[in-house]
Amino acid sequence: MDYYSSQISKLIEELSRLPGIGAKSAQRLAFHIINMPTEQVQQLAHTMTEARNNIRYCKKCFTLTDQELCPICSSDNRDPKTIMVVETTRDLAAYEKTGKYNGVYHVLHGAISPMLGIGPNDIKLKELMERLREDVDEVIIATNSSLEGETTAMYISKLIKPTGIKVSRIASGVPVGGDLEYIDEVTLLRALEGRTII
Amino acid sequence: MDYYSSQISKLIEELSRLPGIGAKSAQRLAFHIINMPTEQVQQLAHTMTEARNNIRYCKKCFTLTDQELCPICSSDNRDPKTIMVVETTRDLAAYEKTGKYNGVYHVLHGAISPMLGIGPNDIKLKELMERLREDVDEVIIATNSSLEGETTAMYISKLIKPTGIKVSRIASGVPVGGDLEYIDEVTLLRALEGRTII
Repeated sequence: MDYYSSQISKLIEELSRLPGIGAKSAQRLAFHIINMPTEQVQQLAHTMTEARNNIRYCKKCFTLTDQELCPICSSDNRDPKTIMVVETTRDLAAYEKTGKYNGVYHVLHGAISPMLGIGPNDIKLKELMERLREDVDEVIIATNSSLEGETTAMYISKLIKPTGIKVSRIASGVPVGGDLEYIDEVTLLRALEGRTII
Repeated sequence: MDYYSSQISKLIEELSRLPGIGAKSAQRLAFHIINMPTEQVQQLAHTMTEARNNIRYCKKCFTLTDQELCPICSSDNRDPKTIMVVETTRDLAAYEKTGKYNGVYHVLHGAISPMLGIGPNDIKLKELMERLREDVDEVIIATNSSLEGETTAMYISKLIKPTGIKVSRIASGVPVGGDLEYIDEVTLLRALEGRTII
């Protein structure tokens, strides 16, 4: 690609390594960056390196944060006796956006996947069990509804049950606004099994 | 978004301002960046600011480059008597990818668009005319096949004709592999008008 200057080619190449950015998008982004005001580019570059350097795990719930304790764990308005277990910080964010969950979280940073060679020791499971030594009322397992997520949910539930702490699993079923016609059979069966009296 | 640390939120916000990057992609990119090796993040940040700071126009063809003369203008293997006029550096790159064009380019950085208030003086047209004082055999107009591109092509052709230099326009027609059934009428008519004896 010597028809671009080497610096543009390099930028395009580095951008195209990012997830979801193909050759064409990388090219568009590169030209956009070259035409952005210099301060904005410096700002973006700075934010990127700062975020990378300062982000660490919350020492309690293991979400990504720039403090020792994340805003949720250090808040007085959250109920520390209810722990929702999620796979990633993005899942945490998804539930936070609902604005209706008042407990705290535990981020596993993955799910058990024998196929990918990810075992119980590769996710933050030991750390979850340690947290349960404190006074906890309920553990809500909100791992994904995938094979790995379900396996992890089963594993955690078996692990916690002997302690006597309540373990629950978020419901599977038809998404709100979903058209039955287009929903797969497994989901339909789950929705049937999970039916509630109205 | 205080469920992320402020630094993650800031990174997501800045990334989502880039073209073609929505809220979800920005979130995915941000988490990817946070999990990248520190050196790689620094490298990307550095490449971005360097490219922004060092890229300028080639003083001959006005493509984006980091030298005074772009690799194409300074190459001995290119024919400087054939100039292809394109709207953007990306269009230049598209033709370079074919590997079959041996002339040089002239990048207009836009097209005449009365609707957007872009006139002949807002693109690198004066600079093209200046280049034509040197020994030039042919000017190939490869602006887009849009209203603005066609207007610009017509304008340039009228401007150059009096000088006696040959002016040509790249062909419009059915794209290779294109299915006639799905091609608009204007293109079909253009293809018919531009038919060649076989």
